[in-house]
Amino acid sequence: KSPMLKTLSIVKKAYIAGFLDGDGSIYVRAKPNPSYRFGFQIAPYVVLFQSTKDRENFEKLCALIGYGKIRERSDGILEYVINRIDDLEEFLSCVRPYVILKRRQVELMTKVLEAKERVEKREDFAALLDLIDRYRSLNYSKKRLQRRLTP
Amino acid sequence: KSPMLKTLSIVKKAYIAGFLDGDGSIYVRAKPNPSYRFGFQIAPYVVLFQSTKDRENFEKLCALIGYGKIRERSDGILEYVINRIDDLEEFLSCVRPYVILKRRQVELMTKVLEAKERVEKREDFAALLDLIDRYRSLNYSKKRLQRRLTP
Repeated sequence: KSPMLKTLSIVKKAYIAGFLDGDGSIYVRAKPNPSYRFGFQIAPYVVLFQSTKDRENFEKLCALIGYGKIRERSDGILEYVINRIDDLEEFLSCVRPYVILKRRQVELMTKVLEAKERVEKREDFAALLDLIDRYRSLNYSKKRLQRRLTP
Repeated sequence: KSPMLKTLSIVKKAYIAGFLDGDGSIYVRAKPNPSYRFGFQIAPYVVLFQSTKDRENFEKLCALIGYGKIRERSDGILEYVINRIDDLEEFLSCVRPYVILKRRQVELMTKVLEAKERVEKREDFAALLDLIDRYRSLNYSKKRLQRRLTP
Protein backbone atom coordinates (compact mmCIF):
# COMPACT_ATOMS: atom_id res chain seq x y z
CA LYS A 1 0.00 0.00 0.00
CA SER A 2 1.14 3.54 -0.78
CA PRO A 3 2.16 5.96 1.97
CA MET A 4 -0.56 8.27 3.16
CA LEU A 5 -0.34 11.96 2.50
CA LYS A 6 -0.15 12.80 6.21
CA THR A 7 3.10 10.86 6.56
CA LEU A 8 4.82 12.92 3.85
CA SER A 9 7.23 15.79 4.34
CA ILE A 10 5.95 19.36 4.37
CA VAL A 11 7.73 19.82 1.05
CA LYS A 12 5.60 17.10 -0.58
CA LYS A 13 2.44 18.53 0.98
CA ALA A 14 3.32 22.00 -0.29
CA TYR A 15 3.94 20.55 -3.77
CA ILE A 16 0.50 18.93 -3.77
CA ALA A 17 -1.07 22.18 -2.54
CA GLY A 18 0.56 23.93 -5.49
CA PHE A 19 -0.70 21.31 -7.92
CA LEU A 20 -4.22 21.63 -6.50
CA ASP A 21 -4.06 25.43 -6.91
CA GLY A 22 -2.79 25.07 -10.45
CA ASP A 23 -4.95 22.31 -11.84
CA GLY A 24 -7.30 20.98 -9.21
CA SER A 25 -10.88 21.40 -8.17
CA ILE A 26 -12.68 21.21 -4.82
CA TYR A 27 -16.44 20.94 -5.01
CA VAL A 28 -19.54 19.44 -3.45
CA ARG A 29 -22.85 18.35 -4.90
CA ALA A 30 -26.21 17.95 -3.19
CA LYS A 31 -27.78 15.34 -5.46
CA PRO A 32 -31.53 14.80 -5.15
CA ASN A 33 -31.98 11.17 -4.09
CA PRO A 34 -35.12 9.94 -2.33
CA SER A 35 -33.30 7.00 -0.76
CA TYR A 36 -31.46 9.42 1.54
CA ARG A 37 -33.08 10.61 4.76
CA PHE A 38 -33.48 14.27 3.78
CA GLY A 39 -33.82 13.67 0.05
CA PHE A 40 -30.25 14.52 -0.95
CA GLN A 41 -26.96 12.76 -1.22
CA ILE A 42 -24.11 15.09 -0.24
CA ALA A 43 -21.14 14.28 -2.44
CA PRO A 44 -17.89 16.22 -1.88
CA TYR A 45 -14.86 15.87 -4.16
CA VAL A 46 -11.28 16.88 -4.66
CA VAL A 47 -10.09 16.29 -8.23
CA LEU A 48 -6.67 16.77 -9.83
CA PHE A 49 -6.47 16.83 -13.63
CA GLN A 50 -3.85 15.88 -16.18
CA SER A 51 -3.69 14.97 -19.84
CA THR A 52 -3.40 11.20 -20.49
CA LYS A 53 -0.13 11.67 -22.37
CA ASP A 54 1.58 12.10 -18.99
CA ARG A 55 -0.13 9.17 -17.25
CA GLU A 56 3.03 7.59 -15.88
CA ASN A 57 4.18 10.67 -13.98
CA PHE A 58 0.65 11.52 -12.92
CA GLU A 59 0.32 8.06 -11.39
CA LYS A 60 3.52 8.70 -9.43
CA LEU A 61 2.05 11.90 -8.05
CA CYS A 62 -1.22 10.19 -7.13
CA ALA A 63 0.65 7.32 -5.47
CA LEU A 64 2.25 9.89 -3.17
CA ILE A 65 -1.18 10.73 -1.82
CA GLY A 66 -2.01 7.06 -1.33
CA TYR A 67 -5.80 7.12 -1.68
CA GLY A 68 -8.39 8.22 -4.22
CA LYS A 69 -8.41 6.82 -7.74
CA ILE A 70 -7.60 7.74 -11.31
CA ARG A 71 -10.24 7.61 -14.02
CA GLU A 72 -9.96 8.52 -17.68
CA ARG A 73 -12.58 10.74 -19.26
CA SER A 74 -13.73 10.22 -22.83
CA ASP A 75 -11.97 13.46 -23.86
CA GLY A 76 -8.58 12.08 -22.82
CA ILE A 77 -8.24 13.93 -19.52
CA LEU A 78 -7.18 11.95 -16.46
CA GLU A 79 -8.99 12.74 -13.25
CA TYR A 80 -7.60 11.78 -9.88
CA VAL A 81 -10.62 11.74 -7.61
CA ILE A 82 -10.74 11.75 -3.82
CA ASN A 83 -14.30 11.36 -2.54
CA ARG A 84 -14.21 9.27 0.64
CA ILE A 85 -14.96 11.53 3.59
CA ASP A 86 -12.02 10.33 5.72
CA ASP A 87 -9.61 10.79 2.81
CA LEU A 88 -10.99 14.25 2.04
CA GLU A 89 -10.64 15.37 5.65
CA GLU A 90 -7.06 14.21 5.75
CA PHE A 91 -6.21 15.65 2.34
CA LEU A 92 -7.64 19.08 3.18
CA SER A 93 -5.93 19.26 6.57
CA CYS A 94 -2.59 18.35 4.93
CA VAL A 95 -2.67 20.94 2.13
CA ARG A 96 -4.46 23.69 4.07
CA PRO A 97 -1.33 25.44 5.42
CA TYR A 98 0.16 25.74 1.91
CA VAL A 99 -2.75 26.50 -0.40
CA ILE A 100 -2.86 30.09 -1.71
CA LEU A 101 -5.40 30.39 -4.54
CA LYS A 102 -8.01 27.95 -3.22
CA ARG A 103 -7.67 28.91 0.44
CA ARG A 104 -11.34 29.90 0.83
CA GLN A 105 -12.50 26.72 -0.89
CA VAL A 106 -10.40 24.60 1.49
CA GLU A 107 -11.75 26.45 4.54
CA LEU A 108 -15.36 26.25 3.46
CA MET A 109 -15.15 22.61 2.36
CA THR A 110 -13.65 21.74 5.75
CA LYS A 111 -16.73 23.35 7.33
CA VAL A 112 -19.04 21.43 4.99
CA LEU A 113 -17.44 18.12 6.03
CA GLU A 114 -17.75 19.04 9.71
CA ALA A 115 -21.39 20.07 9.29
CA LYS A 116 -22.11 16.84 7.37
CA GLU A 117 -20.79 14.78 10.28
CA ARG A 118 -22.86 16.71 12.83
CA VAL A 119 -26.21 16.31 11.04
CA GLU A 120 -28.82 14.91 13.41
CA LYS A 121 -32.00 16.70 12.55
CA ARG A 122 -33.66 18.51 9.73
CA GLU A 123 -32.37 21.97 10.75
CA ASP A 124 -28.81 20.68 10.72
CA PHE A 125 -29.32 19.40 7.21
CA ALA A 126 -30.85 22.71 6.09
CA ALA A 127 -27.79 24.50 7.50
CA LEU A 128 -25.53 22.09 5.60
CA LEU A 129 -27.35 22.86 2.34
CA ASP A 130 -26.89 26.57 3.06
CA LEU A 131 -23.16 26.05 3.47
CA ILE A 132 -23.10 24.13 0.20
CA ASP A 133 -24.87 27.01 -1.54
CA ARG A 134 -22.24 29.40 -0.18
CA TYR A 135 -19.64 27.04 -1.54
CA ARG A 136 -21.23 27.07 -4.97
CA SER A 137 -21.27 30.84 -5.10
CA LEU A 138 -17.58 30.88 -4.16
CA ASN A 139 -16.72 28.57 -7.05
CA TYR A 140 -19.09 29.74 -9.75
CA SER A 141 -20.78 33.02 -8.73
CA LYS A 142 -24.03 31.50 -9.99
CA LYS A 143 -27.38 32.23 -8.50
CA ARG A 144 -28.35 30.21 -5.46
CA LEU A 145 -30.40 27.09 -6.05
CA GLN A 146 -33.79 26.71 -4.46
CA ARG A 147 -33.97 23.28 -2.90
CA ARG A 148 -36.86 21.62 -1.13
CA LEU A 149 -36.15 19.14 1.65
CA THR A 150 -38.27 16.02 1.79
CA PRO A 151 -40.73 16.32 4.66
CA LYS B 1 10.49 45.15 -4.65
CA SER B 2 9.18 41.62 -4.16
CA PRO B 3 11.37 38.92 -2.68
CA MET B 4 13.14 36.70 -5.18
CA LEU B 5 12.20 33.08 -5.48
CA LYS B 6 15.65 31.91 -4.38
CA THR B 7 15.21 33.59 -0.99
CA LEU B 8 11.99 31.67 -0.26
CA SER B 9 11.60 28.62 1.94
CA ILE B 10 11.75 25.14 0.41
CA VAL B 11 8.03 24.86 1.17
CA LYS B 12 7.25 27.84 -1.07
CA LYS B 13 9.52 26.50 -3.79
CA ALA B 14 7.82 23.11 -3.62
CA TYR B 15 4.42 24.81 -3.84
CA ILE B 16 5.48 26.66 -6.98
CA ALA B 17 6.87 23.41 -8.45
CA GLY B 18 3.47 21.83 -7.83
CA PHE B 19 1.67 24.75 -9.47
CA LEU B 20 3.98 24.53 -12.48
CA ASP B 21 3.29 20.79 -12.79
CA GLY B 22 -0.44 21.38 -12.50
CA ASP B 23 -0.98 24.40 -14.69
CA GLY B 24 2.27 25.63 -16.11
CA SER B 25 4.24 25.37 -19.29
CA ILE B 26 7.96 25.38 -20.10
CA TYR B 27 8.83 25.92 -23.73
CA VAL B 28 11.27 27.48 -26.15
CA ARG B 29 10.86 28.92 -29.62
CA ALA B 30 13.43 29.39 -32.33
CA LYS B 31 11.89 32.32 -34.24
CA PRO B 32 13.28 33.07 -37.69
CA ASN B 33 14.64 36.62 -37.49
CA PRO B 34 17.28 37.90 -39.95
CA SER B 35 18.48 40.54 -37.51
CA TYR B 36 20.02 37.80 -35.34
CA ARG B 37 23.47 36.44 -36.13
CA PHE B 38 22.38 32.93 -37.10
CA GLY B 39 18.95 33.87 -38.39
CA PHE B 40 16.94 32.88 -35.31
CA GLN B 41 15.91 34.44 -32.06
CA ILE B 42 15.92 31.81 -29.28
CA ALA B 43 13.03 32.62 -26.94
CA PRO B 44 12.55 30.40 -23.86
CA TYR B 45 9.54 30.77 -21.55
CA VAL B 46 8.02 29.57 -18.34
CA VAL B 47 4.31 30.39 -18.10
CA LEU B 48 1.80 29.83 -15.30
CA PHE B 49 -1.90 30.09 -16.13
CA GLN B 50 -5.02 31.09 -14.25
CA SER B 51 -8.50 32.31 -14.99
CA THR B 52 -8.97 36.09 -14.58
CA LYS B 53 -11.69 35.58 -11.96
CA ASP B 54 -8.96 34.75 -9.46
CA ARG B 55 -6.61 37.59 -10.36
CA GLU B 56 -6.07 38.84 -6.82
CA ASN B 57 -4.78 35.52 -5.48
CA PHE B 58 -2.83 34.82 -8.64
CA GLU B 59 -1.03 38.16 -8.24
CA LYS B 60 -0.09 37.11 -4.70
CA LEU B 61 1.42 33.93 -6.02
CA CYS B 62 3.33 35.76 -8.75
CA ALA B 63 4.58 38.34 -6.26
CA LEU B 64 6.18 35.46 -4.33
CA ILE B 65 8.35 34.75 -7.33
CA GLY B 66 9.33 38.39 -7.67
CA TYR B 67 10.00 38.63 -11.40
CA GLY B 68 8.22 37.95 -14.66
CA LYS B 69 4.95 39.66 -15.51
CA ILE B 70 1.23 39.01 -15.78
CA ARG B 71 -0.61 39.54 -19.03
CA GLU B 72 -4.26 38.96 -19.83
CA ARG B 73 -5.21 37.07 -22.97
CA SER B 74 -8.27 38.00 -24.99
CA ASP B 75 -9.96 34.75 -23.88
CA GLY B 76 -9.81 35.79 -20.22
CA ILE B 77 -6.87 33.63 -19.19
CA LEU B 78 -4.10 35.26 -17.16
CA GLU B 79 -0.56 34.29 -18.08
CA TYR B 80 2.34 34.84 -15.76
CA VAL B 81 5.35 34.90 -18.04
CA ILE B 82 9.03 34.55 -17.14
CA ASN B 83 11.25 35.07 -20.16
CA ARG B 84 14.42 36.84 -19.03
CA ILE B 85 17.31 34.39 -19.15
CA ASP B 86 18.62 35.18 -15.65
CA ASP B 87 15.13 34.83 -14.18
CA LEU B 88 14.54 31.56 -16.00
CA GLU B 89 17.82 30.09 -14.80
CA GLU B 90 17.01 31.00 -11.23
CA PHE B 91 13.41 29.80 -11.47
CA LEU B 92 14.39 26.43 -12.92
CA SER B 93 17.15 25.82 -10.39
CA CYS B 94 14.73 26.65 -7.54
CA VAL B 95 11.88 24.35 -8.60
CA ARG B 96 14.05 21.57 -10.05
CA PRO B 97 14.34 19.49 -6.83
CA TYR B 98 10.56 19.41 -6.38
CA VAL B 99 9.09 19.06 -9.87
CA ILE B 100 7.62 15.61 -10.65
CA LEU B 101 5.60 15.75 -13.88
CA LYS B 102 7.74 18.23 -15.79
CA ARG B 103 11.10 16.91 -14.59
CA ARG B 104 12.41 16.14 -18.07
CA GLN B 105 11.28 19.53 -19.36
CA VAL B 106 13.14 21.29 -16.54
CA GLU B 107 16.32 19.26 -17.16
CA LEU B 108 16.29 19.81 -20.90
CA MET B 109 15.42 23.50 -20.66
CA THR B 110 18.32 23.96 -18.24
CA LYS B 111 20.58 22.42 -20.90
CA VAL B 112 19.08 24.70 -23.58
CA LEU B 113 19.87 27.79 -21.48
CA GLU B 114 23.44 26.56 -20.86
CA ALA B 115 23.96 25.83 -24.56
CA LYS B 116 22.55 29.25 -25.49
CA GLU B 117 25.11 30.94 -23.25
CA ARG B 118 27.97 28.94 -24.72
CA VAL B 119 27.23 29.70 -28.38
CA GLU B 120 30.31 31.06 -30.13
CA LYS B 121 30.26 29.56 -33.57
CA ARG B 122 27.88 28.16 -36.08
CA GLU B 123 28.25 24.52 -34.88
CA ASP B 124 27.33 25.57 -31.35
CA PHE B 125 24.20 27.20 -32.67
CA ALA B 126 23.30 24.13 -34.74
CA ALA B 127 23.69 22.00 -31.59
CA LEU B 128 21.44 24.42 -29.71
CA LEU B 129 18.75 24.10 -32.40
CA ASP B 130 19.04 20.31 -32.09
CA LEU B 131 18.44 20.52 -28.36
CA ILE B 132 15.43 22.75 -29.02
CA ASP B 133 14.05 20.17 -31.44
CA ARG B 134 14.45 17.48 -28.78
CA TYR B 135 12.61 19.78 -26.44
CA ARG B 136 9.74 20.20 -28.87
CA SER B 137 9.35 16.46 -29.29
CA LEU B 138 9.24 16.08 -25.51
CA ASN B 139 6.40 18.58 -25.24
CA TYR B 140 4.38 17.84 -28.33
CA SER B 141 5.56 14.59 -29.95
CA LYS B 142 5.37 16.42 -33.27
CA LYS B 143 7.69 15.81 -36.16
CA ARG B 144 10.99 17.59 -36.04
CA LEU B 145 11.25 20.87 -37.88
CA GLN B 146 13.74 21.35 -40.69
CA ARG B 147 15.52 24.62 -40.14
CA ARG B 148 18.12 26.31 -42.29
CA LEU B 149 20.78 28.46 -40.65
CA THR B 150 21.73 31.69 -42.35
CA PRO B 151 25.18 31.31 -43.92
